[in-house]
Amino acid sequence: MIKPQTLKGFRDFLPKEAKKRQFVINTLKGVFESYGFEPLETPALETLDLLKDKYGEEEKLIYSFKTRGEREVALRYDQTVPLARVVSQYPQLPKPFKRYQIQNVWRGERPQKGRYREFIQCDADTVGSDSPIADAEIISLVMSIYKSFGLDVTIKINDRENFSGLDKKYVSAIDKLEKIGESAVLSEMAEKGMADKDAKEALSKLQNKTLTENLRKILEVLENMGVDMSKIKYEPTLARGLGYYTGMIFETVCFGSSGSICSGGRWDKMIGNFSGLDQPAVGFGLGFDRTIEVLEEQNLIPNLISSAKVLVTIFPGESKELKQKSIDCTSALRSAGVSTELYLDENEKMEKQLKYADKKQIPYVVIIGPDEAKNNTVTLKNLKTRIQKTVLKEDLAQELKTI
Amino acid sequence: MIKPQTLKGFRDFLPKEAKKRQFVINTLKGVFESYGFEPLETPALETLDLLKDKYGEEEKLIYSFKTRGEREVALRYDQTVPLARVVSQYPQLPKPFKRYQIQNVWRGERPQKGRYREFIQCDADTVGSDSPIADAEIISLVMSIYKSFGLDVTIKINDRENFSGLDKKYVSAIDKLEKIGESAVLSEMAEKGMADKDAKEALSKLQNKTLTENLRKILEVLENMGVDMSKIKYEPTLARGLGYYTGMIFETVCFGSSGSICSGGRWDKMIGNFSGLDQPAVGFGLGFDRTIEVLEEQNLIPNLISSAKVLVTIFPGESKELKQKSIDCTSALRSAGVSTELYLDENEKMEKQLKYADKKQIPYVVIIGPDEAKNNTVTLKNLKTRIQKTVLKEDLAQELKTI
Repeated sequence: MIKPQTLKGFRDFLPKEAKKRQFVINTLKGVFESYGFEPLETPALETLDLLKDKYGEEEKLIYSFKTRGEREVALRYDQTVPLARVVSQYPQLPKPFKRYQIQNVWRGERPQKGRYREFIQCDADTVGSDSPIADAEIISLVMSIYKSFGLDVTIKINDRENFSGLDKKYVSAIDKLEKIGESAVLSEMAEKGMADKDAKEALSKLQNKTLTENLRKILEVLENMGVDMSKIKYEPTLARGLGYYTGMIFETVCFGSSGSICSGGRWDKMIGNFSGLDQPAVGFGLGFDRTIEVLEEQNLIPNLISSAKVLVTIFPGESKELKQKSIDCTSALRSAGVSTELYLDENEKMEKQLKYADKKQIPYVVIIGPDEAKNNTVTLKNLKTRIQKTVLKEDLAQELKTI
Repeated sequence: MIKPQTLKGFRDFLPKEAKKRQFVINTLKGVFESYGFEPLETPALETLDLLKDKYGEEEKLIYSFKTRGEREVALRYDQTVPLARVVSQYPQLPKPFKRYQIQNVWRGERPQKGRYREFIQCDADTVGSDSPIADAEIISLVMSIYKSFGLDVTIKINDRENFSGLDKKYVSAIDKLEKIGESAVLSEMAEKGMADKDAKEALSKLQNKTLTENLRKILEVLENMGVDMSKIKYEPTLARGLGYYTGMIFETVCFGSSGSICSGGRWDKMIGNFSGLDQPAVGFGLGFDRTIEVLEEQNLIPNLISSAKVLVTIFPGESKELKQKSIDCTSALRSAGVSTELYLDENEKMEKQLKYADKKQIPYVVIIGPDEAKNNTVTLKNLKTRIQKTVLKEDLAQELKTI
């Protein structure tokens, strides 16, 4: 006998959780498509070569192995590298290529609260346009997504150009400003080799940088798009790591949550690694688990109960006629578009059938006993209020559809 | 520079294909939920122990490897073993537990036409009921699924009980009856050690078996459920491999497709491997790729075009006012619920913008030039008919929603 358990850092999603995820995914898809972004799926496994030298120090977190055919393969680590591959592999894709991708990625992280080894990433990118309109549309898309969830967010925005001339190691220190404070940042810069005075000057110069011409254009389009500009905050010390960003960068924050729930920027130089030809690109990755957490904290996920709206019970007592009435009623409700569960055991006590509906949080129960059968009615019970009423058989579907 | 390519047996789904898959998945979910089945998700990786000794000879097709932490893990191979684990791991789940699961599985098969190493499985099972109503509901669910796609199918049904007393090796020969014909089956049985005469007699006895009491009950419920019984075919030689089935078994076939597109049965003995306590279970696995193939052959997947219904162009010529009008129009359309793409390059020739819409199969295009701007109108062009007309700005959203 094997002890039933999941691997550390991996999760089962039982129906209640699975439904929350479906709700969030469906909302995301709706907003993406309203902006004309198209779905893309790529394989879970890629050649290890593809993923190598893309993720810096994190490379060691890639799950990789040799197949029986001695092929070195790796599990998807993010969705940007596969996107870069796709754009190079299918030059016939119309440009700009606006795609979204919602798939699992796998990372061998040390498991800890809120950090998993398998998790959904949700990316949207526009490839093939260097227009500030493309940048602005990405920001507007993020605002629309969170608006559709009813979540109030602020977007911090900056331009990597602001760091030009500054060594990477100092940029990574400055990126921690909000987290560790100014004096800690200055110490780190000093440790890394910059004279105290120079560090102070560099930081202060950065803090006082005015908008780059590029950002100015992007913000102008954003304003034209009717985005609430009080929610867009220019932050000249925001660096977004050191990765592959080449222009505008941003992070999305919201009240009650530390850290970004959705971040991205322009990355014009990565696709060239595959095709030899650079392709401008701008987009973001939305933290799916973080977003669900925040939505739950703020009660913004509707109460998703059972799939079925109603359970049709089977009156105990081995009456073939009553069983047939329950089956008929189930078929009629399903045909009318009402999600309906039929109790599967014809010999179970009514009390136990009602308990089952309670446990599964099915909101309504239908009972057809001898009296109901005689009068062509059913008893419809609301399990929340415990109120029941008699409904004509032919009115039941309509009744259930309207309540 | 890395050559951009996918691993053999693995597929990218570009937008058009990805949309077909979404359409099929959404339809499936809708039908599952109308029957009260709930979604379940399990991890892509499980301990190798869990998957061992479950799949017979096919075990060698499992993708397994050691993690950096020296843990032996394996990629999901099917969804039945994970379900058995889940049911044992969470005894609090209300029974019967009716779940559906639509996730990828991975198998190191030799790639060939229509066979992949990564593919979606789509399962539905009812765990915890041994009632014939549960069996019948599973069959009715399969009929409803294909009905909802508009596909005419026949379900072949049998009971494993019909093979009781017959050695497994002979059953696996008989299972090939339809594929290889009677004389080949008889030769195989002879090769495997049964005297010619006995083989003939065994086969003929099987072919003439009448319904088991169990099947009779299931068919009675099915008929009561209003299922078209002319589509249910009793086939006493149907064996469905040798696996874990313990009672009713079935296969779904349709005109123009050889082999089953959806099959399953009752499997009452597997969950006990985990919990020590058997749990009755009945369900099926639907061949996702096979189903899509058949639906496409019969033209039953609607023409899924671009995400966007309309492309709003930007009138070339660097006019800020016209660009603003196009942006305004885009925002207004999106607010009104019309999926809208804004052309991202304000300096592109109109011809090229229209070509982009054609290539992406966006059905409509909006043009706002100096005349339109002056009159508060837009030009709305149908890219299929190439007919264009002038529409008042405030009427545009309504117009697009109704056409």
